[in-house]
Amino acid sequence: MAQETASVPTDLPVKRPREEEQNGASATGGAMETENSTDNGTPGISSVIPGWFSEISPMWPGEAHSLKVEKILFQGKSDYQNVMVFQSATYGKVLVLDGVIQLTERDECAYQEMITHLPLSSIPNPKKVLVIGGGDGGVLREVGRHSSVEQIDICEIDKMVVDVSKQFFPEVAIGYQDPRVTLHIGDEYQMFKLGKNKIDLNTFSLLRSSGPAQELFEKPFFQSVANALRPGGVVCTQAESIWLHMHIIEDIVSNCRQIFKGSVNYAWTTVPTYPSGVIGFMLCSTEGPSVDFKKPVSSIDTSTDYNKARGPLKFYNPEIHTAAFCLPAFAKKVIDAKAK
Amino acid sequence: MAQETASVPTDLPVKRPREEEQNGASATGGAMETENSTDNGTPGISSVIPGWFSEISPMWPGEAHSLKVEKILFQGKSDYQNVMVFQSATYGKVLVLDGVIQLTERDECAYQEMITHLPLSSIPNPKKVLVIGGGDGGVLREVGRHSSVEQIDICEIDKMVVDVSKQFFPEVAIGYQDPRVTLHIGDEYQMFKLGKNKIDLNTFSLLRSSGPAQELFEKPFFQSVANALRPGGVVCTQAESIWLHMHIIEDIVSNCRQIFKGSVNYAWTTVPTYPSGVIGFMLCSTEGPSVDFKKPVSSIDTSTDYNKARGPLKFYNPEIHTAAFCLPAFAKKVIDAKAK
Repeated sequence: MAQETASVPTDLPVKRPREEEQNGASATGGAMETENSTDNGTPGISSVIPGWFSEISPMWPGEAHSLKVEKILFQGKSDYQNVMVFQSATYGKVLVLDGVIQLTERDECAYQEMITHLPLSSIPNPKKVLVIGGGDGGVLREVGRHSSVEQIDICEIDKMVVDVSKQFFPEVAIGYQDPRVTLHIGDEYQMFKLGKNKIDLNTFSLLRSSGPAQELFEKPFFQSVANALRPGGVVCTQAESIWLHMHIIEDIVSNCRQIFKGSVNYAWTTVPTYPSGVIGFMLCSTEGPSVDFKKPVSSIDTSTDYNKARGPLKFYNPEIHTAAFCLPAFAKKVIDAKAK
Repeated sequence: MAQETASVPTDLPVKRPREEEQNGASATGGAMETENSTDNGTPGISSVIPGWFSEISPMWPGEAHSLKVEKILFQGKSDYQNVMVFQSATYGKVLVLDGVIQLTERDECAYQEMITHLPLSSIPNPKKVLVIGGGDGGVLREVGRHSSVEQIDICEIDKMVVDVSKQFFPEVAIGYQDPRVTLHIGDEYQMFKLGKNKIDLNTFSLLRSSGPAQELFEKPFFQSVANALRPGGVVCTQAESIWLHMHIIEDIVSNCRQIFKGSVNYAWTTVPTYPSGVIGFMLCSTEGPSVDFKKPVSSIDTSTDYNKARGPLKFYNPEIHTAAFCLPAFAKKVIDAKAK
């Protein structure tokens, strides 16, 4: 089992204040009404399809994706957010933070495999990995597939996310069973100090609920990341949707281009339960051995006991790795201009 | 302007009967409630987010995508279906047939450009094109970008779709202004007889509302298509979602592999307002000059007057063409097995 360290002091806020109410929806995002509920005055509850969960947010105004709810399995409030798990009719169990879908059992493979293997397959023999966020454990499960990896640190601010995942998503939280994993509950800045110039890969499985998470997409933050990486080390972070957030993506690419002296690339993939059905990834490397993210250099050894136990990859393969960097014309024009 | 022929006799049904009611949703698919509406007993109307349009169908049970409605611009009933146009808050104007979103101004570029340029860029100097469905005119607009094309026939069964597109979607229906275009209102089987062994490209922009459209995905239908194509001619049809309809896709690929003696390939792209956020395409070629769909052989001459007037492509480019054929592991496994 993974070790669990004492909490790291949280001297810097990770979550930013919610945006103001907009679009007629509760600013907490999301809306839930059980079949017997008639109370539309409760915060976060609005008039939606009875018995369905609807994801409404000022981050994607004017549209909402809804899933039919079979049963609510957990509702709690941590120091940081509202945490909910429900059994959906057709997407398996669903984890929701502050009204925003984080994962469903049916499509979590796409996000977890891509945010992990896009960067890890782009460098030879990765050894030290730092995961920020991703408390559900799915990224850990995928990192563990790379047999060269010796050390996996994960820094998650909200212990409730870890606990809930272990209870309701055992096939995701299985990532914690890897003896290479150490869980740190707390703020990520301390982790960067520990990892200075040592880390091969830093993956950010940022909470989608934190919206544009401005401070995590700005230069001082990326500078901390760059400092923590070894020469030629890489970072991969969730980076919004090309259909919804081109203005944010433009800023992220621009900031990364100034901070990271190696490669700076944007990739994307399909995730049905994320707004607009896609999610992007920002991949950067530091000065040092050059990294061509578009051409995977290491493959996953499927014959290891670890990979046999976890079963085959559901989503990632080398072809879809390369394809993920091909952008539609409207996105390519903007991103290429900023990435140079 | 395009010519418009007399109606072709419709001796065969194009639309199949609706599937039975399922999942608590009206079997007509879709649900609409205006802000002042309180009538939830009308067929096709259910309790959804007030002032929003929700797309509910037994074809994608347990999930629904909703768009905020600013104003309903048109509601009509043709001999074949219910036709609606509304102004959405964030996706521009939206065309809905029998409760299912056909296109929005914001993302129509992805579907129209990919279903057209994937096949047309895969063969040298296409001359004769037959479009089945796609009465909105968007595919015509894209076909016209290829300057080698001399003749474009479109066969649309529902004249109301054409009229509504010309009235509310001028930037889509602009495709009809091409003098190479001839519009045939009626059933497509007559078109196959007219086109026997002559057509370079046959594109099916099938109505998504017709669900799996069983008879259009079965062998006799594909045999008619194959007969209409010249040796080395190609067909591209809408082919559902890898996330939702792998069992249907498996059958389509299997049928196509038996009928088409050339290449048989599956591609996909992102369309935010289609269920699960993706749509697939089936691309096949007949016996004759070999076609490698994954490698575009002809490019669009952007210097022609036609292309200057239409403006640049928004979505398609040669890289995303090749990337569209890269499938996630779960889909590749099934499709590759059937395509061989």
